[in-house]
Amino acid sequence: MRIMKAEQFGLQREVEYGTPEQNETVRQIVEAIKAEGDAALLRYTEQLDRVQLEASSLRVTQEEIQAAYEKVDAEFLTAIREAAVNVRVFHEKQKRNSWMDLQPDGTMLGQILRPLKRVGVYVPGGKAAYPSSVLMNVIPAQVAGVPEIVMVTPPATGGKAGIDPYILVAAAEAGVKEMYRVGGAQAIAALAYGTASIAPVDKICGPGNIYVALAKRSVFGAVDIDSIAGPSEIVVLADEGANASFIAADLLSQAEHDEMASAILVTPSETLAEAVAAEVERQLATLPREAIARASIDSYGAVLLVDSIEAGITVVNKLAPEHLEVLTADPMSLLGLIENAGAIFLGPYSSEPVGDYFAGPNHIIPTNGTARFSSPVNVDDFLKKSSLIYYSKEALLKNGNSIMTLARHEGLEAHARAIQIRLEQEGK
Amino acid sequence: MRIMKAEQFGLQREVEYGTPEQNETVRQIVEAIKAEGDAALLRYTEQLDRVQLEASSLRVTQEEIQAAYEKVDAEFLTAIREAAVNVRVFHEKQKRNSWMDLQPDGTMLGQILRPLKRVGVYVPGGKAAYPSSVLMNVIPAQVAGVPEIVMVTPPATGGKAGIDPYILVAAAEAGVKEMYRVGGAQAIAALAYGTASIAPVDKICGPGNIYVALAKRSVFGAVDIDSIAGPSEIVVLADEGANASFIAADLLSQAEHDEMASAILVTPSETLAEAVAAEVERQLATLPREAIARASIDSYGAVLLVDSIEAGITVVNKLAPEHLEVLTADPMSLLGLIENAGAIFLGPYSSEPVGDYFAGPNHIIPTNGTARFSSPVNVDDFLKKSSLIYYSKEALLKNGNSIMTLARHEGLEAHARAIQIRLEQEGK
Repeated sequence: MRIMKAEQFGLQREVEYGTPEQNETVRQIVEAIKAEGDAALLRYTEQLDRVQLEASSLRVTQEEIQAAYEKVDAEFLTAIREAAVNVRVFHEKQKRNSWMDLQPDGTMLGQILRPLKRVGVYVPGGKAAYPSSVLMNVIPAQVAGVPEIVMVTPPATGGKAGIDPYILVAAAEAGVKEMYRVGGAQAIAALAYGTASIAPVDKICGPGNIYVALAKRSVFGAVDIDSIAGPSEIVVLADEGANASFIAADLLSQAEHDEMASAILVTPSETLAEAVAAEVERQLATLPREAIARASIDSYGAVLLVDSIEAGITVVNKLAPEHLEVLTADPMSLLGLIENAGAIFLGPYSSEPVGDYFAGPNHIIPTNGTARFSSPVNVDDFLKKSSLIYYSKEALLKNGNSIMTLARHEGLEAHARAIQIRLEQEGK
Repeated sequence: MRIMKAEQFGLQREVEYGTPEQNETVRQIVEAIKAEGDAALLRYTEQLDRVQLEASSLRVTQEEIQAAYEKVDAEFLTAIREAAVNVRVFHEKQKRNSWMDLQPDGTMLGQILRPLKRVGVYVPGGKAAYPSSVLMNVIPAQVAGVPEIVMVTPPATGGKAGIDPYILVAAAEAGVKEMYRVGGAQAIAALAYGTASIAPVDKICGPGNIYVALAKRSVFGAVDIDSIAGPSEIVVLADEGANASFIAADLLSQAEHDEMASAILVTPSETLAEAVAAEVERQLATLPREAIARASIDSYGAVLLVDSIEAGITVVNKLAPEHLEVLTADPMSLLGLIENAGAIFLGPYSSEPVGDYFAGPNHIIPTNGTARFSSPVNVDDFLKKSSLIYYSKEALLKNGNSIMTLARHEGLEAHARAIQIRLEQEGK
């Protein structure tokens, strides 16, 4: 693992927009679903997923979900149930109420918060199908009060027939009642525009391959979408007293995700830098996903030396990492200085997988520096707000002239007259 | 104004994605700003706005702002100050605190809310430069606590030299301290990527022409952007007792915005329908913007007849209008049934211009049916959240096995080992 001065390091990854061919493929699929509905959905499923379905067999049955429960092991079921409780509890704390401001003249202003009505969650097939991500997408929507949450996932995963039973169980545990065996751009288009079998949704979330990402981008506007996630990132900020083995293990837990994942240690301690680099090497050797983790460490990993912890925080704020671990003598004292980080893990026992799987906060977190302006998935993502204005006669009589002044300045006479006609009726 | 059964009406407008030529123009401008900075910014300003500037003259000076105050009339200044207070008060009520959940085993979980650091507000030139929109974009950012709010606006507006003094005054009143005379796609690219004269921002908001909209779309990811607004819309839901003149005036106040604006009355009363249609005709005749309002009413306006007010609410929820006025005998009793509307105006004195200019709620509201899933501009738009996880040793010892079970099920052994290495150190 390379060790360098922080000033020498730059991390810049471009957003993936797809090739013109991929964009054209997605455009054709979306148009076909819009025009032909189920017929196109079944045709693309046969063509792309090599599975022949009928409209009546798109929906996953209650029996299949029951059968999935028979297949998952008990230890997994216990753990996912514990995790689901923690995720639910953490997200419940985010809930807000609609509010009103009642003014002495009878005017009432407010903000009404309502859940979206129908949300679609995409779950990719194959090895990218993570039960934990099902929880992280579904539970915030459910806590927000979304009455209809629908899951779509490809009909065959990783060469196996049917849907991974662990995914079905995770979805059922999270509370999903409606699941369809469709994937790819065709599933996204079906969720956005609806078909005879699948009613359209208001928002689509969940990760997928480049076709899924491009399809989500193309239906945005007709429906809302979540953000498109980039490769995973961890930054560890640590001082001399930190445990090098812990740090190396945590860096590798991100590096194993993806060759493009990024794992960075920021420290003022050369001793720690060298110890962590050595530990990374030692631990890498026995990892099942050694090749992936090594590629990630070689290309996007680094130990960055800084003059002080405060200088390290400046580096962290520039990187705006998805995950930040702070392993210093008094991590809480630094919290106020951390401006940009999607999730902040403090102290030696807050290993990042604690948050990935279990503690409760969401594991879908902004990547690629976007923690500067965006947030982990949360309950607000599934709420919409409406403004409420009940203006009293007294308020209108008092303020009508100011409103007309502003409208007329902007050349919008009809706006002014909508006020004037009311003032005139009151004899003003 | 046409009167029809609600079932016969469909309102569908496509999102504007620009022509290939417009997209290519914007791509070239954005690339040039990224590569050349100020040099390209000045070149495009000369080429497109026909104004020759130097880097040192991009920023609006304190003297110009003072001079602008000399030019605006006193009545306007009073009114915009009153409006600014109301907008600030309403948005202050939206503020939220960071929160923590302290658990008995010492674990602490939380959500940290922070303002974005730097926000850019685009203000179009010419007739589309509305002082009220400056307030509506700037004040929520300011209330959120954004320390740096920067305004950009084209150097010449509507054939006049210099920036409209009313825009300068509105920005100064809203609290903007940093303003630049640049517009178009080049201004958006400068805000997104920065130049020697203009430091990059984290989010760009504000309306603009098609080039501005395409540039915002293209820089999204490097920075956050607000949503792209469509033509304005009003739906009035009214029963027999409502005042036809008020309704007609309110419909026209939207219709005068734009030939593509939409103004719709939904009512079970044929008597009211006919009275409003006649009133619209009568009031149209004396409007300065008659041609625009008439085009809007003819193309996108309608009176929709429904069987009952409840059936009318179903229509409203399908339309998901930007603005909804409810002029019925007891409007508050219907509030719970209204699922989709950006801003809801209740009762005879809550004319829509009250909200456009003065009451306090934001006038930048989702259009084109997107109130199904999005919200008026609000303080949350300028905040980002970070998750906070401080896990205690006790919590890790208790839950470590469940975390490892979930990680290993997903094939992520390094995740499991990051937990295991800690358990082993504790002798587990």
